[in-house]
Amino acid sequence: MVTVSTSTAPVRSYHHGDLRSALVEAGLKALETTPLNDLSLRQIARDVGVSATAVYRHFPDKAALLSALAAEGIAQMAQQQRDAAATAAPAQAFAATGRAYVRWALAHPALFRLVFGQCQEVGQTVFGDNDAARMLRDYAQGITGDEAGAQRLMLQAWSLVHGLAMLMLDGQLPADDGLIDRVIDAETLFRT
Amino acid sequence: MVTVSTSTAPVRSYHHGDLRSALVEAGLKALETTPLNDLSLRQIARDVGVSATAVYRHFPDKAALLSALAAEGIAQMAQQQRDAAATAAPAQAFAATGRAYVRWALAHPALFRLVFGQCQEVGQTVFGDNDAARMLRDYAQGITGDEAGAQRLMLQAWSLVHGLAMLMLDGQLPADDGLIDRVIDAETLFRT
Repeated sequence: MVTVSTSTAPVRSYHHGDLRSALVEAGLKALETTPLNDLSLRQIARDVGVSATAVYRHFPDKAALLSALAAEGIAQMAQQQRDAAATAAPAQAFAATGRAYVRWALAHPALFRLVFGQCQEVGQTVFGDNDAARMLRDYAQGITGDEAGAQRLMLQAWSLVHGLAMLMLDGQLPADDGLIDRVIDAETLFRT
Repeated sequence: MVTVSTSTAPVRSYHHGDLRSALVEAGLKALETTPLNDLSLRQIARDVGVSATAVYRHFPDKAALLSALAAEGIAQMAQQQRDAAATAAPAQAFAATGRAYVRWALAHPALFRLVFGQCQEVGQTVFGDNDAARMLRDYAQGITGDEAGAQRLMLQAWSLVHGLAMLMLDGQLPADDGLIDRVIDAETLFRT
């Protein structure tokens, strides 16, 4: 077993908030190539060029880092959904958020699995009291006209886009961009 | 490390086909309690009471056993869908197959993950040339009236039920039996 002395690692200097951002960014980058089990705080410290001790001040353990990465993933996904809705025709806006969900998942497979496999609080985020959730609820209510129907529509839509993303990520369906448009089709989905 | 001599293991006698069935049954049972990574042919041999050599005659490696377990899982799931369709009102038959999909997933989480996480050939099974696939295609075509629409409807329905199953298995939505009925609702899903 090789013990790496942290005192010999290159040490860079960060302002407090900057270091946290740098660590999250390094974690997201590591997630693209490193299996989740192999991700370590020590590795992230090396990538960023600080001591393990400096990392522990922000993330006392690996779970804390993963939770921060998942939060960042959720925020990115919500932003991509808002952007997609903003540029779509009004009648297509709700479907556009669903397509953005699947496309984000395909672009960030490991982060998507981290968000939905490990973070029990996502459901609350998706249906909670935040901008993206409010936007989706408004769309759903605009389509169904009542709150119970909107709640059901959101669950149906979430299930559909989540399932399409998983089936494509697991190789059950081709990760084909045109297929995303055909399956998430505002004309044929959901009677109201 | 403890080495178990297979010659001291209890040895039972099986007809050729019976042993294969017994091994698959033991594998399915082991899957309920043992993480996939820890599942071993040696353990299955012990569970069934035969030598490892006897197991290798049917399954040369773990991948071959897992493939057989997945095939059994797909068959069970298809049977549960057929049973659900047979006992549902005609207008509810297609939705009933979707509910059966989710309920089967919740009842067999490890096998469900094995089938859809590891078996690239499932898509072909679901849309292939077999009884269950033909039944689903007939329902879809009966609803949409044309083949292209039926293909899209099947992809939408598969995505929706798969997503609902995954969100419930991963704890994002409560694994609530009534919720399955509300989300997979023939009255509100899919314009045709």
